[in-house]
Amino acid sequence: MDYRYRLDMKVRDYECDIQGVVNNGVYMNYLEHARHEFLLHEGIDFAELARQKINLMVIRAELDYKLPLVTGDHFWVGVNVVQSSKVRFDFLQDVYRAADNKLMLRAKITGTAVNERGRPFMPEQVASLALPQPEAVE
Amino acid sequence: MDYRYRLDMKVRDYECDIQGVVNNGVYMNYLEHARHEFLLHEGIDFAELARQKINLMVIRAELDYKLPLVTGDHFWVGVNVVQSSKVRFDFLQDVYRAADNKLMLRAKITGTAVNERGRPFMPEQVASLALPQPEAVE
Amino acid sequence: MDYRYRLDMKVRDYECDIQGVVNNGVYMNYLEHARHEFLLHEGIDFAELARQKINLMVIRAELDYKLPLVTGDHFWVGVNVVQSSKVRFDFLQDVYRAADNKLMLRAKITGTAVNERGRPFMPEQVASLALPQPEAVE
Amino acid sequence: MDYRYRLDMKVRDYECDIQGVVNNGVYMNYLEHARHEFLLHEGIDFAELARQKINLMVIRAELDYKLPLVTGDHFWVGVNVVQSSKVRFDFLQDVYRAADNKLMLRAKITGTAVNERGRPFMPEQVASLALPQPEAVE
Repeated sequence: MDYRYRLDMKVRDYECDIQGVVNNGVYMNYLEHARHEFLLHEGIDFAELARQKINLMVIRAELDYKLPLVTGDHFWVGVNVVQSSKVRFDFLQDVYRAADNKLMLRAKITGTAVNERGRPFMPEQVASLALPQPEAVE
Repeated sequence: MDYRYRLDMKVRDYECDIQGVVNNGVYMNYLEHARHEFLLHEGIDFAELARQKINLMVIRAELDYKLPLVTGDHFWVGVNVVQSSKVRFDFLQDVYRAADNKLMLRAKITGTAVNERGRPFMPEQVASLALPQPEAVE
Repeated sequence: MDYRYRLDMKVRDYECDIQGVVNNGVYMNYLEHARHEFLLHEGIDFAELARQKINLMVIRAELDYKLPLVTGDHFWVGVNVVQSSKVRFDFLQDVYRAADNKLMLRAKITGTAVNERGRPFMPEQVASLALPQPEAVE
Repeated sequence: MDYRYRLDMKVRDYECDIQGVVNNGVYMNYLEHARHEFLLHEGIDFAELARQKINLMVIRAELDYKLPLVTGDHFWVGVNVVQSSKVRFDFLQDVYRAADNKLMLRAKITGTAVNERGRPFMPEQVASLALPQPEAVE
């Protein structure tokens, strides 16, 4: 699969639970961090928008857990984005173990943007993310 | 909606992010805790099973974020469970703000159980969770 | 020991690490939550102050780890506070396992308050915390 | 200051709280990760030791918070270690903002090692960490 953005990370011991694997909830952190780094890379600063009272919000998350990351694993998160409605965009985010490029987790995170009064508000720079999806090459 | 189990909780300040709301990933923690407390209530000890090398695993999570919890909010998590295949069960978990019983998050967490060799293995006490879904009464 | 405030809590599985015990860093979360609940109980709202650009800040933390909490443990946090200088107060916070009231962790968290320009600023309601230390009765 | 080990990191948005700064407790995570990476660099695998029922444990932590890291900050953690008793070692860990090498946090984390029965047990490779402290050059 081709991705518009890729972030390399490494599992930290405190992220692992009593089963010795990365806790399920931690993947949400990985995905958020990769998404915000991707946005930053595209000139969109999540924190700066929050200060301007424009909140990028997640409204739906779908995660398919394939294999568990364990302590010490290097991994990377691939990010694509498609516009799914006038005010919604889907982030397609996949987590791969670096050692063998094996798919660990597949996620679709649907987001929107709202202004100070909670109304849908699409900042221009976010709207411009809505480019045609890159050709998926397995 | 009727639930087989209900857990009362309160938002902690460290769970809130720069937007002033509970961070998206934290709901996975809430849901896991409510799930494990529910299992314990049904006589199933997640940690004890982990020590026996039987791992209850999440294989899919679907979360619909309706409204954000904020600092200081009291809330409760309702839990139901249905068997979705021979070796899979779906936890239907909803998060409600206590002040007005407003739905904040709706989630479906699909789990399975594997033994030491990673093979599907359904402990008897987990299988017994597979009761017919309670009548949903809105 | 006598405490001005006591908060009952329970270990959550996601707070435990690969050693099967509550991760060291998680105690900082427990202590913060107990401190904020104590402040709220005294009429001081950490989050509301933050919105008013008055930030209660930790400037030093000392933690003595005695025994580890494990999954399923019920515990409670005792809180006392003493003024240690004109603009500083020490929170004396101890964590006890509920089953046997055994001391798990002893902590001293030193805090101060700063205004929007980062200058020490002691809100009246915080200053009023500076009561003489309660008689310690073992 | 000279350090035996240095780890470069970046603040992640989910680590920041409603004050817009890295939450106090998160520094414990940073310090643990830097410590474990340092140990790994010295040939000591925390997770592997845990599997062998040899637990490296923190028994005391002292943290001096100087300045807060904020969202987007790059930073690095410097690590030194000194033996403070037959079975204890002190990790001297400092956190610097990368942009200006300003000291953000100074920490001393005291650790020990215990075996399966909870008795102090110093693995050879850990004992070998007890080298004379490097010359501190400000």
